Amino acid sequence: MSQIEVNRRLLSENDLAAAFLREKFGREGTLVPNLISSPGSGKTTLLEATVAAMSGTYRLAAIEGDIATERDADRLRRLGIPARQIITGGACHLDARLVRAELERGGLEADILFVENVGNLVCPTSYDLGEDFKVVLLSVTEGDDKPFKYPGIFSRAAAAIITKIDLLPYVDFDVEVVRAQVNTLSPDGRFLLTSARTGEGVDEWCRLLAEKLNAKRKAADRADAPGN
Amino acid sequence: MSQIEVNRRLLSENDLAAAFLREKFGREGTLVPNLISSPGSGKTTLLEATVAAMSGTYRLAAIEGDIATERDADRLRRLGIPARQIITGGACHLDARLVRAELERGGLEADILFVENVGNLVCPTSYDLGEDFKVVLLSVTEGDDKPFKYPGIFSRAAAAIITKIDLLPYVDFDVEVVRAQVNTLSPDGRFLLTSARTGEGVDEWCRLLAEKLNAKRKAADRADAPGN
Repeated sequence: MSQIEVNRRLLSENDLAAAFLREKFGREGTLVPNLISSPGSGKTTLLEATVAAMSGTYRLAAIEGDIATERDADRLRRLGIPARQIITGGACHLDARLVRAELERGGLEADILFVENVGNLVCPTSYDLGEDFKVVLLSVTEGDDKPFKYPGIFSRAAAAIITKIDLLPYVDFDVEVVRAQVNTLSPDGRFLLTSARTGEGVDEWCRLLAEKLNAKRKAADRADAPGN
Repeated sequence: MSQIEVNRRLLSENDLAAAFLREKFGREGTLVPNLISSPGSGKTTLLEATVAAMSGTYRLAAIEGDIATERDADRLRRLGIPARQIITGGACHLDARLVRAELERGGLEADILFVENVGNLVCPTSYDLGEDFKVVLLSVTEGDDKPFKYPGIFSRAAAAIITKIDLLPYVDFDVEVVRAQVNTLSPDGRFLLTSARTGEGVDEWCRLLAEKLNAKRKAADRADAPGN
């Protein structure tokens, strides 16, 4: 079996589990964003800020992918939401079968279920987890050449979130250069500037989540209406 | 064929090419560090500073791994050293067969051949490229929890280089917390603090390279001596 054939087969097993998850999330009205970035771009920190802003209004839960530790799930549990760590034991991405197994343990019922992928700007891009949309995070300290260097995720993400903008005065990072690359790769994508430290942009991100959740539920209501 | 069996077979094809490269680098007296980090940790920037400091004394060359662009090789060629980009077209790591094919095109003969891997703290760890040693870079903006979260690379790297220490005043990053994790994972590894912007620590890194090159050549001379 060639490497390509094997990758195809693994992806297709993943896609079966992803289809199962997408149906389940649709039926339960759960919005699922899949957060992808390099290690240290601020995924967990953004989620902490999101939980602080939204957990009074929405039921939130999280699945955290990590190579080797429980640290990220611990951080979110401390804020009072159910969070489950999937430790991949070396694997470079979450796959849908792992997510499915975790959901079957129960306790993650929510309006919004955040999936925080393993810190990796490459591999998680190819794995459908049944999510509603992918979100890519890029911190201003990583350099403004990254979207064109990692076009896979930047072209697939429905939202690109620039993080740590409080550090802009100290680094060479031209926001407009990045915005232009992201617009080229994902013309319909959203582009957000955030700092979890100052709180800037977090409200816009939370509004985006609320809009996506409402749109998903309205679409489901229309599908359920008599005559459909 | 199971995923594990396939991974084994792919690794073993890689290992054959890596053995070929290691023999070649040994015969030619070329030192080969394999630089691994997240996207944007400063691999290319460190190499630029290294070339500026060492190219008067040593013949330097570089192989740059990237998903989709020639940018990094361009940056090094501008400094006057031969640099070749391997564009993986989506693959998340360099493998030894790609490096071997690039060397067979010629023009990369050097005292030190830097291999800059694809920006990814996970996958490149498992692929032997025939290098003398792996180097992991971690920028202070990525957070001080990373060695224990990515133990594979931090336990295998002969040197851990903390980059962008000029940004320490603006981020929460406890150097001693990181040093302790690195020492646990790699008790014999070197731990360097650097800033390519201020130049701090670059001399120590260059001394480390010169020591490793001398040690490799002395060991080769002893092996060639009569009686051996």
